[in-house]
Amino acid sequence: MSSPAAQADLTARLARARAAAAAAGLDAVLITPGPDLRYLTGYVAKPLERLTCLVLRSGADPVLVVPVLERPAAEAAGVAALGLAIAAWEETEDPIALVAEILGTGVRDYGVDDHMWAEKVLRLRTGLPGVAQHLAGDVLRGLRIRKSPAEVDALREAGAAIDRVHARMGEWLRAGRTERQIGRDIADAIIAEGHVRADFVIVGSGANGASPHHEVSDRVIEMGDAVVVDIGGTTEAGYCSDSTRTYTIGEPDPEFRRYYAVLLEAQRAACEAVRPGIGAQEVDRVARGIISAAGYGEFFVHRTGHGIGLEGHEHPYIVEGNAEPIEPGMAFSVEPGIYLPGRHGARIEDIVVCTTEAGERLNLTPRELTVLPV
Amino acid sequence: MSSPAAQADLTARLARARAAAAAAGLDAVLITPGPDLRYLTGYVAKPLERLTCLVLRSGADPVLVVPVLERPAAEAAGVAALGLAIAAWEETEDPIALVAEILGTGVRDYGVDDHMWAEKVLRLRTGLPGVAQHLAGDVLRGLRIRKSPAEVDALREAGAAIDRVHARMGEWLRAGRTERQIGRDIADAIIAEGHVRADFVIVGSGANGASPHHEVSDRVIEMGDAVVVDIGGTTEAGYCSDSTRTYTIGEPDPEFRRYYAVLLEAQRAACEAVRPGIGAQEVDRVARGIISAAGYGEFFVHRTGHGIGLEGHEHPYIVEGNAEPIEPGMAFSVEPGIYLPGRHGARIEDIVVCTTEAGERLNLTPRELTVLPV
Repeated sequence: MSSPAAQADLTARLARARAAAAAAGLDAVLITPGPDLRYLTGYVAKPLERLTCLVLRSGADPVLVVPVLERPAAEAAGVAALGLAIAAWEETEDPIALVAEILGTGVRDYGVDDHMWAEKVLRLRTGLPGVAQHLAGDVLRGLRIRKSPAEVDALREAGAAIDRVHARMGEWLRAGRTERQIGRDIADAIIAEGHVRADFVIVGSGANGASPHHEVSDRVIEMGDAVVVDIGGTTEAGYCSDSTRTYTIGEPDPEFRRYYAVLLEAQRAACEAVRPGIGAQEVDRVARGIISAAGYGEFFVHRTGHGIGLEGHEHPYIVEGNAEPIEPGMAFSVEPGIYLPGRHGARIEDIVVCTTEAGERLNLTPRELTVLPV
Repeated sequence: MSSPAAQADLTARLARARAAAAAAGLDAVLITPGPDLRYLTGYVAKPLERLTCLVLRSGADPVLVVPVLERPAAEAAGVAALGLAIAAWEETEDPIALVAEILGTGVRDYGVDDHMWAEKVLRLRTGLPGVAQHLAGDVLRGLRIRKSPAEVDALREAGAAIDRVHARMGEWLRAGRTERQIGRDIADAIIAEGHVRADFVIVGSGANGASPHHEVSDRVIEMGDAVVVDIGGTTEAGYCSDSTRTYTIGEPDPEFRRYYAVLLEAQRAACEAVRPGIGAQEVDRVARGIISAAGYGEFFVHRTGHGIGLEGHEHPYIVEGNAEPIEPGMAFSVEPGIYLPGRHGARIEDIVVCTTEAGERLNLTPRELTVLPV
């Protein structure tokens, strides 16, 4: 059960989603378990083989289709208070036929959840012949991309929780230990410091730091190593954290120091470039321009960032080719990196939320190079 | 990197999948991160917005499409040794166009991973106009449903790990503690006893035990409670455990004792009914028949079981309407339950693998009612 304020938020979201669907020419959107369902109803369910599906029709009240044995969980989540009728299907019934029946015969176009499994997408296509399938995300994106003040608070709380983990890094990150050992300690601390789940732990030491999506390995940390630590989790409220700091164990390679200073400046400038109206790709260009001007452009091999909220990666993507203007309430990572293959790498990442005037960073641990004792 | 034997297994699976696709009239199957990709290549990747996709063509060598920054991870997973070419796409490229180019112009029918996200399914449909989409699962199912001896060993290891957690239940399950507190201890023990992840923890005490998919709550365990404990995790090898035992805290309601005896007999008989050639629904009927004959049929509200392997729920489903014959190597849960709404409930669950002669249970903790001290 959620608070009256949270219930009012959910009710408003359902109404906005219906209106947005209608405006987009969709007669209905079908939402399966995942972040969209949580966003619209507060109901947290895992995607499984049995169909759970919110049928949000433009012209009629919403219905939540659930397997009969999930009915108590759906009821306990408080969906009835949102005006959702529950339609439960028995183990031997066909839930696709039930959805088709609820949609009725007048439906011409409907949207499916962006994360709906193909097996459900294709069965719906067969079960609703002649009805056009679209992506519901094109409709929901406009809602989820602008965070409410309560959502920004939830992201701020997640940011503070992951900051507390980074602040403790010296407890674990030492020469002689493996990335895997350190990663386990970090994962425990992600939970201990205020998350319900550790979503990822990257400890990229030495040459491993030059692979942006390296996770952990049995490599032993050595003196002089640079170590990229990119970590995140999900809080009780469902919001994600994601922050990267790069540490060195004793004094690093002089070239590392040189490009780290470039990276620090690029990350700072990109964060400061955030303001309402700037195109997402412009933020990428600010970071990339500084890194390229210093001669490291070819070593910055990924986009500058991704949106964050109920998902670790969501819109807006801060990437060349995405001209969409940043608006107040949008929250995303700013995480340029420089990676020298076979040698070492560095990345600095903060979550930034756009206010009515500028970008506000939600991660606040020091970004200057942290040299840990050997 | 995996052992030569494991590599040989993967190579054989890829060849069998290609042959099965061709036999089903598919020119290719497209596999995104998840259990199918792990099964075919050993590559463990998370489903994310950036497309990673195995393009398995009937008439040409397989290609793994990856975002450029995942290339090192894919290489480290050893996919090159399987004869997979890697096609990496840059951040500003269109991966759907890359897949279309790899497929070429002769493709008429292709399969998509059953768990592929709708956003990718619909973009592929747009990017490959006039080409028919099918479910790859209809092809892969025949492979994954029959476990190899190595896979059965992996499931046996997972079963032993979750058995060790049940064996310790008396350490945590006591009157005066909440389901949530007990659930946290169990989740820690799932990891400690040999899993890399705790997938679910159900502690359903008193009336909560009558809701089969209840998870945990702040309800305090009381004397006389029956408590359904259904738990599972994933091992390092990627295989899932899943076992339910029902405990009582001191002496339960006499009616609980009565139907528990019925349930115990139903679960035993269903496990003993497993043999090559029996229809999946027949196993369900054996359990349901005994429970119905004792007058509790209306309180057994779910199917008898589900397959298990790299996924917690997979084929075969032990449910009325599924006549498919059980074959050696099939592994699934046998988990009848009786649930008295508002009062209490019970479930007993073992994973059973079909050998060439009969069913072998992989969970071996006592199934007789365990009465814990108050």
